[in-house]
Amino acid sequence: MNQDIHARRRDTARAALAAAGLDALLVCHAANRFYLSGFELHDPQCNESAGYLLLTRDGKDRLLTDARYEDAAKRIWDETLIHIYRAPKSKDIAQFITGLGYAAVGFESDGLSHKSWSEFEAGGLSLAPSGGLVEHMRRIKDEHEIAAMRRSCALTHAAFAAAPDMLVPGRDEAQVAWELEKYFRSNGASELSFATIVGVNENAALPHAVPGSTKVPEEGLVLVDMGCRLDDYCSDQTRTFWVGKTPSDRFRHVLDMVREAQEAALAVMRPGLPVREAYLAARGLFERYGQERFFTHSLGHGIGLETHESPSLGPNSADVLEPGMIVTVEPGLYYPEWGGVRWEYMILVTADGIERL
Amino acid sequence: MNQDIHARRRDTARAALAAAGLDALLVCHAANRFYLSGFELHDPQCNESAGYLLLTRDGKDRLLTDARYEDAAKRIWDETLIHIYRAPKSKDIAQFITGLGYAAVGFESDGLSHKSWSEFEAGGLSLAPSGGLVEHMRRIKDEHEIAAMRRSCALTHAAFAAAPDMLVPGRDEAQVAWELEKYFRSNGASELSFATIVGVNENAALPHAVPGSTKVPEEGLVLVDMGCRLDDYCSDQTRTFWVGKTPSDRFRHVLDMVREAQEAALAVMRPGLPVREAYLAARGLFERYGQERFFTHSLGHGIGLETHESPSLGPNSADVLEPGMIVTVEPGLYYPEWGGVRWEYMILVTADGIERL
Repeated sequence: MNQDIHARRRDTARAALAAAGLDALLVCHAANRFYLSGFELHDPQCNESAGYLLLTRDGKDRLLTDARYEDAAKRIWDETLIHIYRAPKSKDIAQFITGLGYAAVGFESDGLSHKSWSEFEAGGLSLAPSGGLVEHMRRIKDEHEIAAMRRSCALTHAAFAAAPDMLVPGRDEAQVAWELEKYFRSNGASELSFATIVGVNENAALPHAVPGSTKVPEEGLVLVDMGCRLDDYCSDQTRTFWVGKTPSDRFRHVLDMVREAQEAALAVMRPGLPVREAYLAARGLFERYGQERFFTHSLGHGIGLETHESPSLGPNSADVLEPGMIVTVEPGLYYPEWGGVRWEYMILVTADGIERL
Repeated sequence: MNQDIHARRRDTARAALAAAGLDALLVCHAANRFYLSGFELHDPQCNESAGYLLLTRDGKDRLLTDARYEDAAKRIWDETLIHIYRAPKSKDIAQFITGLGYAAVGFESDGLSHKSWSEFEAGGLSLAPSGGLVEHMRRIKDEHEIAAMRRSCALTHAAFAAAPDMLVPGRDEAQVAWELEKYFRSNGASELSFATIVGVNENAALPHAVPGSTKVPEEGLVLVDMGCRLDDYCSDQTRTFWVGKTPSDRFRHVLDMVREAQEAALAVMRPGLPVREAYLAARGLFERYGQERFFTHSLGHGIGLETHESPSLGPNSADVLEPGMIVTVEPGLYYPEWGGVRWEYMILVTADGIERL
């Protein structure tokens, strides 16, 4: 990717830095660091592995990493602004940052362990917790990001098109999940965006169904929730399939209600809408059928460099839809003794409405 | 696995708790939680996702998790000792633990973010940093662990036996890595224990070689460093292959030195040996050839539920080998303009010597 994009993002973040009264911000959250610098998106869920970005008000942004990543850093960053830290790591980092002389330095407290933080403090580096700044920016996707997410989403669609042939009666959930993963990886995905869920019948009602040894039946439902990382961006979609000749009446009825609830939510979604109202639109539909107590999930979540990002589309969310947001809309009904049905789209909020990706 | 094993481990940890003057320890590090409870080893590198174990001096150990994992928790834990926390999570957890009335509660500071810690504090839960207790136990593998690691290591051996056929000239590093991953996963591994390294020629000298578009040559060296997670336990091995008819003289010479250094280290390893001396034995061999400045890694590391565990086999380590430790021994020589050669074994320290797994 063009480094100009990252430089522009840093300038935007820099302005927020000034507004927060900070001279610098130690970016600890791996996905935030990648978003602002393009540096190393391995293990985006695991922080403190590849290093840190020190975003500064004076524009001399430093990349801090260890010797393993020295070559990778030099390929994308001004060498005079790279700091390679050595053991003992925390002492080295504390010394380096205090030596730069910034008065007010913030840090992302969800991306730093208490251990590292206390070692920084012991090394004389005093940090002010100031999270959320970059996460807030990341809610609105730019053109480059939207294009990448279209590709990631398209690959998930292709995988869903291939899925029915993989749902062979007698094959177990774990085997189906592995077939799907092979499809993603063989078609360009760098990894799954989360562990694929393949749930047969009752297993589809489990909120955290790990694919196991339950076999695809001759007749029955299979919920598949999956996504991949392609060109750095995540996708996440769910479909619930019927295996066998004729879907049962109950399956058809539950699926109809879920799809109706999804349409009800989509119908109200537009810039300016409190996301809570999209949730309530879906819930309202379930209430008409008296099924709302089986709608135990939130309606969806933001998605981008991470599978779960801001905003959350739950009943307690205070967020408002804005153009450029990409969120999942995934109503479902879960009956522990029977099974679950969920259907999930990824939605781009446009200038005057929404677009299904 | 038999839950008795976990109960026994908790009793051992409990004794250490008493010695540390703690009434309870909040186990935050995911691999430690799994080691003591058998609860959820997904993302062992990522903490704070599946929950926490509160190990207590009175023996009423609590499992804390969220609704997604409720079923999984009930399958292995006394229901009266499970706490399902709800949003806002940190406040709920702080309230629950303070309500139990323990006076001195420790926590693992490397497994808890500064954010969660400060939210716990704000919720009235005061915690004392007390890490390392479980990590120290985990250095010595029990019979069950040694058996699992033999299986994990054996699958890596099988993958290495299959590897030469995958090193097809013209195929790129990333394709080879993916073929190897498919081999692991198709043969029972739940995941890779770390991202496979496949480095052609100069790339083999990079300390953090991400498999890329460099193609396997008609004649040249390929370093492969890989491992898997099988039955929860990690393996990690490196071999450096020559592709083509006749290995170059330089390759043969460098490989000979590396293998000699490995034998020199293995020759001195036994219970009671400071691990630093194993490092120095390998280094001493390289010094005889005047190549020690190209030995830029440590000699190895402990391995188990995580790929990198205590002890570290580096020049500054103060650890001493003990029966039941499993460590890697992986000397290498790295020449940036030419390539790198590394050879890695997993070694079990026995009552009176060592065994190569």
